[in-house]
Amino acid sequence: MTFLTGNHPLLSVAVTRGGCIESRHRVAVSLVGPSGPVAAWGDVDAPVYSRSALKPLQALALLDHQPDLDRRRLALACASHNGEAVHTELALAWLADLGLGAGALECGAHDPIDTPTARALDAAGCACGRQHNNCSGKHCGFLALARHLGVDPAGYTHQDHPVQVAMRRAAEPFLGLDLEAVPWGIDGCGAPNPAVPLRTLAGAFARLASQGNGPSRRIFDAMAGEPYLVAGRDRFDTAAMQAWPGRVIVKGGAEGVWVAGIAGTGLGLALKVEDGAKRAAEVAIAGLLSRLMADLDALHDWSHPSVKNAEGRQVGDIRLLWEETP
Amino acid sequence: MTFLTGNHPLLSVAVTRGGCIESRHRVAVSLVGPSGPVAAWGDVDAPVYSRSALKPLQALALLDHQPDLDRRRLALACASHNGEAVHTELALAWLADLGLGAGALECGAHDPIDTPTARALDAAGCACGRQHNNCSGKHCGFLALARHLGVDPAGYTHQDHPVQVAMRRAAEPFLGLDLEAVPWGIDGCGAPNPAVPLRTLAGAFARLASQGNGPSRRIFDAMAGEPYLVAGRDRFDTAAMQAWPGRVIVKGGAEGVWVAGIAGTGLGLALKVEDGAKRAAEVAIAGLLSRLMADLDALHDWSHPSVKNAEGRQVGDIRLLWEETP
Repeated sequence: MTFLTGNHPLLSVAVTRGGCIESRHRVAVSLVGPSGPVAAWGDVDAPVYSRSALKPLQALALLDHQPDLDRRRLALACASHNGEAVHTELALAWLADLGLGAGALECGAHDPIDTPTARALDAAGCACGRQHNNCSGKHCGFLALARHLGVDPAGYTHQDHPVQVAMRRAAEPFLGLDLEAVPWGIDGCGAPNPAVPLRTLAGAFARLASQGNGPSRRIFDAMAGEPYLVAGRDRFDTAAMQAWPGRVIVKGGAEGVWVAGIAGTGLGLALKVEDGAKRAAEVAIAGLLSRLMADLDALHDWSHPSVKNAEGRQVGDIRLLWEETP
Repeated sequence: MTFLTGNHPLLSVAVTRGGCIESRHRVAVSLVGPSGPVAAWGDVDAPVYSRSALKPLQALALLDHQPDLDRRRLALACASHNGEAVHTELALAWLADLGLGAGALECGAHDPIDTPTARALDAAGCACGRQHNNCSGKHCGFLALARHLGVDPAGYTHQDHPVQVAMRRAAEPFLGLDLEAVPWGIDGCGAPNPAVPLRTLAGAFARLASQGNGPSRRIFDAMAGEPYLVAGRDRFDTAAMQAWPGRVIVKGGAEGVWVAGIAGTGLGLALKVEDGAKRAAEVAIAGLLSRLMADLDALHDWSHPSVKNAEGRQVGDIRLLWEETP
């Protein structure tokens, strides 16, 4: 789990101030095409917790059992959403169709990621609910799958519950991995989460982007077609999928993980910031995607953010550094 | 500004999940005693923006011109405070004695670091003021110094204002550096901030801890004697100085910088987390100080924090890793 195993060139993200680099983040990246690995920075064979980058692969199990699932619900199952009304209303409607309420979700509650929504809740004297958890769509998918499997949904986040077994079985062919043989941890939402090499994660997103007509095409079209449901206001994933409509899927995870799949070229990308920083992961995925899409300006505010002081004056910036070696 | 120049052993902070290391932070540390450097991890000669670790050295200039300065105000000048009432009232009273108001502060406004204070302001429909800026005490000191120098305080954050010149002149002998010859940036509060080697920063705090009877003793006693004013509720610096009353001074800065001085042994310590993460800097300074004070239990919650999921269940931890090499 170190990025310094072997002699791999490294990519880094620099945080500058006054013309000097103040802080530096190391980034490992795997780029895989239809015929196999294309490029790598850092150690792409070390296991990395996939976190929310796993969601589109978990949603495959849902399609296996409910091929006619509504596109918006499928997008929400793949989301780390903002907890805006459009997200929570969709989650609650899905739960209602299952005869369930937010109490059935095992993800716990946290404040909406979207600050205006969180402030509005606060101002109205309302506590956040489990539907506001950024993973509530994935958990609705877990509950829907339990219903289709005909099993008791209670305890659906346990590693050996039929829902989790089905999720692993559906993801394995895309990852090309035996998921019984990798390390597992508990994600922030209580669901089990595997640590997998970046190379296999990038390969899975290359397969999702390969644009056949099966479930992978459904996942790609749901995410690319409903970018706001996948994240929301002021979020990179939404901005990127809106910038290149129908051409990319992009999914961030906690602790500096990000993945993308590109239609046409069939490229899959997976990256991990060694220290887990979101500010670096956003700059890295924005810079890499812009180059892969040959469209450097589309996400300039994301790939070249400013560092500002309390009065709003720019005092530095954050930028991707190429061709660094350890 | 890289920690991989040369062949220095490195210290790191690991963030674990499910028994695996999920993310890793690299830390450079310099430890200096009364007779010179004692130990180093990482490159301690590369310039590092000193950020708020500079405040106790800047306060030396204040004592040069106002030797009878009240201990509480001196502690506030060294603070990165929470913006709690005890901090803002002290700042406003100091300003009033100068015939000034918060409008004279050039630090900009930000929400109080202390969440309950920020929420209470919000609930009362009040906007945060410049007095809530964590650096407002330092800026009160800037304004007091301008008064004692008999100069117009306006523009006191400009690099060539007499206040900044006096601050540099007072800090230089402690750092053993010509501050005209190092890189400078603009801090979050608008004040100029120099990048200095960790070794010189640690040396300066060894001198502050050497317990003579001059201004360094005044600074040490003010910080150690008023730990709540230096930071506040749920803050590491306050907790550490309360844990070892009168024996240490501790000061954190932005972007993963931390310094400490230990009375008796006369040790000075300075560290920088390469990627700037506060979660790693807190674990590193807590772990290092606990060992230097030969009191491993006093700050256990700070040196071994848990990683929890949204339901409050522990899913990992954060810990200092010793004896790592790149």
